[in-house]
Amino acid sequence: MLSEIGREAYARGWALGTSGNLSAVVGLDPLRIAITPSGVDKGRLAPEQILEIDGDARPVRGSGRPSDEAAIHLAVVRARNAGAVLHTHSVWSTLLSESCAPAGGIAIHGYEMLKGLEGVRTHDHREWLPIVENRQDWSGGAPSVRAALEAHPDAHGLLLRGHGLYTWGRDLGQARRHLEVLEFLLEVRGRFRAAPQAAEKEA
Amino acid sequence: MLSEIGREAYARGWALGTSGNLSAVVGLDPLRIAITPSGVDKGRLAPEQILEIDGDARPVRGSGRPSDEAAIHLAVVRARNAGAVLHTHSVWSTLLSESCAPAGGIAIHGYEMLKGLEGVRTHDHREWLPIVENRQDWSGGAPSVRAALEAHPDAHGLLLRGHGLYTWGRDLGQARRHLEVLEFLLEVRGRFRAAPQAAEKEA
Amino acid sequence: MLSEIGREAYARGWALGTSGNLSAVVGLDPLRIAITPSGVDKGRLAPEQILEIDGDARPVRGSGRPSDEAAIHLAVVRARNAGAVLHTHSVWSTLLSESCAPAGGIAIHGYEMLKGLEGVRTHDHREWLPIVENRQDWSGGAPSVRAALEAHPDAHGLLLRGHGLYTWGRDLGQARRHLEVLEFLLEVRGRFRAAPQAAEKEA
Amino acid sequence: MLSEIGREAYARGWALGTSGNLSAVVGLDPLRIAITPSGVDKGRLAPEQILEIDGDARPVRGSGRPSDEAAIHLAVVRARNAGAVLHTHSVWSTLLSESCAPAGGIAIHGYEMLKGLEGVRTHDHREWLPIVENRQDWSGGAPSVRAALEAHPDAHGLLLRGHGLYTWGRDLGQARRHLEVLEFLLEVRGRFRAAPQAAEKEA
Repeated sequence: MLSEIGREAYARGWALGTSGNLSAVVGLDPLRIAITPSGVDKGRLAPEQILEIDGDARPVRGSGRPSDEAAIHLAVVRARNAGAVLHTHSVWSTLLSESCAPAGGIAIHGYEMLKGLEGVRTHDHREWLPIVENRQDWSGGAPSVRAALEAHPDAHGLLLRGHGLYTWGRDLGQARRHLEVLEFLLEVRGRFRAAPQAAEKEA
Repeated sequence: MLSEIGREAYARGWALGTSGNLSAVVGLDPLRIAITPSGVDKGRLAPEQILEIDGDARPVRGSGRPSDEAAIHLAVVRARNAGAVLHTHSVWSTLLSESCAPAGGIAIHGYEMLKGLEGVRTHDHREWLPIVENRQDWSGGAPSVRAALEAHPDAHGLLLRGHGLYTWGRDLGQARRHLEVLEFLLEVRGRFRAAPQAAEKEA
Repeated sequence: MLSEIGREAYARGWALGTSGNLSAVVGLDPLRIAITPSGVDKGRLAPEQILEIDGDARPVRGSGRPSDEAAIHLAVVRARNAGAVLHTHSVWSTLLSESCAPAGGIAIHGYEMLKGLEGVRTHDHREWLPIVENRQDWSGGAPSVRAALEAHPDAHGLLLRGHGLYTWGRDLGQARRHLEVLEFLLEVRGRFRAAPQAAEKEA
Repeated sequence: MLSEIGREAYARGWALGTSGNLSAVVGLDPLRIAITPSGVDKGRLAPEQILEIDGDARPVRGSGRPSDEAAIHLAVVRARNAGAVLHTHSVWSTLLSESCAPAGGIAIHGYEMLKGLEGVRTHDHREWLPIVENRQDWSGGAPSVRAALEAHPDAHGLLLRGHGLYTWGRDLGQARRHLEVLEFLLEVRGRFRAAPQAAEKEA
């Protein structure tokens, strides 16, 4: 299922150039996470390439190297009791994570598609996606991600600046739905910004 | 056939995140409508997931929950004698349903593609797609949709604000053609707005 | 082969909603042209749906109705000795055919991709695509298309205003190459116009 | 593998109209390069269409004509010790190669995706993609490409003006990763330029 989501994300252009990484919790006590290895093409991901890591991001099964961002996956799993974490690099999430960085995040409000996010019952919802500064090395942990998750306990995703989207869910199905919902909304938001006045004037 | 249209719409990005719903009339007396259930992935829609509802949106066959928007499907079927109703969430219909909301609708005029709409014989046709305010709960019926359909008896589609497109047809084939025609025209319209002056000046 | 090109064009969004039509000369004396029938879905085109018409656009084989635009195909075949004529409705050709109509055509200059057009040996070529006013009824012939082809004997394509692109070639392979080349260049041109200043300033 | 990359690039719209060419070193002493022939559809590339050329771009195996740009492939192989060279014509690389030509190149800085380029360890990397003037005839060699490669020894790609992208790698896998990384970044860059102020203001 991780490999299938990888192929779908690659086909949509959300995981080009071996970017992106995907994980799912496979055991809780002790914590065990299935995760895509570093540097692997998500369009050709085979189930046997998936690694298993422990709660310290050490590989316990499989032969590849875990992504440096495994620490972010672990931080999300713990902060949100997530069963799956998906990280993609789409054009729109990358672009907005940079252009909106001065504001610290992106607000999305009023769209029906927001109801695809777990627990959201009305389009009159305001989703705030925090933007966290990117870093070179996450191997020592991801305190800035943890802080953003704590500061925004209702957020269904977060962006790393110039880097892309992280979202999650109770299980892979829900995480995949959140991925599609947020990538859609970021594209709407990005395109809307390209010509808001023109759009309103002509109306 | 509903499942095939669901997969096509999903592939084009018009039904991400379990959004969208599709229906077809399967009996008239009493009224019976086949409809996609709530919360189902349109890219993986299996024929056996399709429900059947009666004229009060109560399920009479199948095991899922009908969409809250079943009332809109019923309103369209009755107002237009439609045999099929298709609802999608594309980026462009979502974006324009928001940016053009102050005008109450979107006018599309002069495009050959308009002749793909039933009964339209010339590109010199002006299609008015009304925009209806979105609501949280449609279970009690869809009076605002009914009112828009009555006020614009020639419209081949309507938009819910911040939500997406509804279109319909005598049968599924015609509804699918209207879907493609209107999504195409909304994209042209949306892109045109991004740079109308630049386009005209350089010409 | 016509059906294969139809499916490709549909998949790229260049022939949605049963739009577009495709033809290939199958006999010269007397003139016989294989052509897609009116109102057929180009994404599901079966070889047996292709019609054959004579030099007056009358069907001589097959059971569908020829497109009203068969007269345009005949005009192109005669003016250019074309072996195949392809007509598509992409978003960018539709948009530019409208925005550039006051100028009477679209100039494309300096792109390497131009060398994909038959007889063009250098990127320093200036291709002029004339824009012809759209009409409701082409059944009586296409004098405005003939006039544009005569006035621009080097053009590899032409646009109908608000309608789309016509291109052609010695055979289907060449016509298909011209289609891809021109649709590509129209997209480049359309996107360039959206932000030429921004692009130059930042450079 | 060349044919597979050709089909992928075609499907994404990076090699329409028989544009693009792909090569891989198959022998070093004497130098032998497998390369796609001139004028071939990259979406239908069959392994048996691939040619083999020597270090003077003369065919030594296969029946087609090598691309006029074989000299560029040879220049890249020699300057970079590349095992594979990929040349594509995407909309964004074409557009930016023209709009940024006055600056002599395109700087890309701060994006995580840059780490997909060999040897880049941090997103805080500044990639400079030189833009070389396009020419009609490369058969006599590619001194301007050689000069650009020497002047920018760290560049992972270069653009020909109005023409497209060249990138390379130690082997085909790495070259393909560089292609996806650079095409992604050029799209981000191109879209960002369309509305940088709007994006920042609204944030």
